[in-house]
Amino acid sequence: MSATTLTPAPTALTMDQLFNHWMGHRNLTRKMIEKYPEDQLFTFSIGGMRPFSELVLEFLGMAIPSLHGAAYREWKKEEELPLLAGWTTKPTTKQELLDRWDFTTKELQRIWKDLTPERLQEEDVAFGQWPGTMYWLLMYVIDNEIHHRGQGYVYLRALGIEPPFFWDRL
Amino acid sequence: MSATTLTPAPTALTMDQLFNHWMGHRNLTRKMIEKYPEDQLFTFSIGGMRPFSELVLEFLGMAIPSLHGAAYREWKKEEELPLLAGWTTKPTTKQELLDRWDFTTKELQRIWKDLTPERLQEEDVAFGQWPGTMYWLLMYVIDNEIHHRGQGYVYLRALGIEPPFFWDRL
Repeated sequence: MSATTLTPAPTALTMDQLFNHWMGHRNLTRKMIEKYPEDQLFTFSIGGMRPFSELVLEFLGMAIPSLHGAAYREWKKEEELPLLAGWTTKPTTKQELLDRWDFTTKELQRIWKDLTPERLQEEDVAFGQWPGTMYWLLMYVIDNEIHHRGQGYVYLRALGIEPPFFWDRL
Repeated sequence: MSATTLTPAPTALTMDQLFNHWMGHRNLTRKMIEKYPEDQLFTFSIGGMRPFSELVLEFLGMAIPSLHGAAYREWKKEEELPLLAGWTTKPTTKQELLDRWDFTTKELQRIWKDLTPERLQEEDVAFGQWPGTMYWLLMYVIDNEIHHRGQGYVYLRALGIEPPFFWDRL
């Protein structure tokens, strides 16, 4: 048996770049929440789809639990995580949604420090249901937010409201 | 002066993973085009937004020119690239859109082989207009497709058509 030199696979995105990518998109989603008139945020929809508040709750329900599982190998849904024990009731105001958003941002920043690049390349079964590589899971969480936020853009336009610029991630 | 050992920044996504991520999303967008009734593809819209065919043309107009610029440091718009000389007239059928889609997929696969990880980390001014790191530009192209495709999901739902599953990228 001869020794083999493993060349590391070439990097497309670094850990910092992936995290900043995620946080940039979360900034844009926060701007979207702010743009909504309070009532329409919780009620307006098209084609039988969910109102934007419900989409935001989906983003919130995925973000911390997914990163927690990726970092700590422990899969707990929103309602099972002690950190999110205060989230048993549904927000009914824009401010409550924004508060959960900002809480989530801080927690993601904290948990990210415990995530290793090796773990990002590991296969696991997220929440005991979805097999995949951990970088893939996090990309899915980010993409799901971009996807449904695009839906929110149509709602805002249909309401006659100019949405934030797509490139505005600060 | 003491010698410094530079530790490479930890990888979140490899080159292959980023490319597969992109191609997976393009597969999903192709499924969307296929789901549309031919007439609605070119006409249906909500809130004064563009019909889905126009969004698809935007994706096509960004994909090859952006990757070409990232790989070859030459910024040419769709209409300036000899490769796309056949694209001077607008497609008027679903099949024409799908043909351009498949042509683009093959060309992206070809150009990607000429893109280096070093180049992905370089700053450049895309199309002489948008300064940024090259990985960022490609992520923008991908995200823009996810974003506007999400808009297409609302159109399909409003038309009473079940869109493809968001996770179906094969």
